[in-house]
Amino acid sequence: MHAQFLQLAVDLAAENVKSGKGGPYGAVIVRNGQIIASSGNCVTSSLDPTAHAEVAAIRLACEKLHDFQLTDCILYTSCEPCPMCLGAIYWARLERVFFACNRHDAAAAGFDDSFIYDEILLSPPNRKIPMQHLGLENAQLPFQLWAQQEAKTLY
Amino acid sequence: MHAQFLQLAVDLAAENVKSGKGGPYGAVIVRNGQIIASSGNCVTSSLDPTAHAEVAAIRLACEKLHDFQLTDCILYTSCEPCPMCLGAIYWARLERVFFACNRHDAAAAGFDDSFIYDEILLSPPNRKIPMQHLGLENAQLPFQLWAQQEAKTLY
Repeated sequence: MHAQFLQLAVDLAAENVKSGKGGPYGAVIVRNGQIIASSGNCVTSSLDPTAHAEVAAIRLACEKLHDFQLTDCILYTSCEPCPMCLGAIYWARLERVFFACNRHDAAAAGFDDSFIYDEILLSPPNRKIPMQHLGLENAQLPFQLWAQQEAKTLY
Repeated sequence: MHAQFLQLAVDLAAENVKSGKGGPYGAVIVRNGQIIASSGNCVTSSLDPTAHAEVAAIRLACEKLHDFQLTDCILYTSCEPCPMCLGAIYWARLERVFFACNRHDAAAAGFDDSFIYDEILLSPPNRKIPMQHLGLENAQLPFQLWAQQEAKTLY
């Protein structure tokens, strides 16, 4: 069963290249054995660098289920999620993930997945895209307001 | 100059909590000293778990610039990017990033940023959300088609 849904994700990835819609990636989200959403990578066709197959499928599934969490859903993806998609999977609280290729296959095909995994381990200022902490007096104010806010939706 | 734009991101984060739009985060994207896009976190109001302030601002900036890369742009964010946003920053190829709070401040406020950074270091099957490799005979086909495709947009 898992292999069948994963095969659909790989088929979607192949179709995505043939149609020129985007990169060689596909993702399928399933709940209780039913497909809730699926997508290919559409970074270049939608001019959205975050529109990886997994992120796009998560957005579609949330739209369909009218929820910002997918706690009882399984994600099938043609390739190991990159750090962005991995983060999205945690924030969406998916149940589990199956993948067909890995980050090194993606690197061999010219994609930065493995590079970004390596960059995460560096301290922020030492990354290829430098990330610098700047102290501001009231930097904690948003968190303080959040703690005080009673009518808030946790996520 | 950097501190001023970063202050705007923090102000946006505070305003985001007060208005009930979402979590205590804000981001501003600047090119040549001009603000291109800005956003608060809108996960709960847009029912999109990927709508962190940074991701939302990146998507808006790309829309505005009609591009899927932001190579000459600087991102100012009220808090150190989580792994999802960090990945998005690399895929959008921003020039650099400034942040006010860090992942431990976010953790103290009840957010999973630091937890997800820790999870990345584990092997996929050992994560809290298990990620399992399943071998498929034609798993590499999408990458092979991509290599053969001549008229493709790289990203």
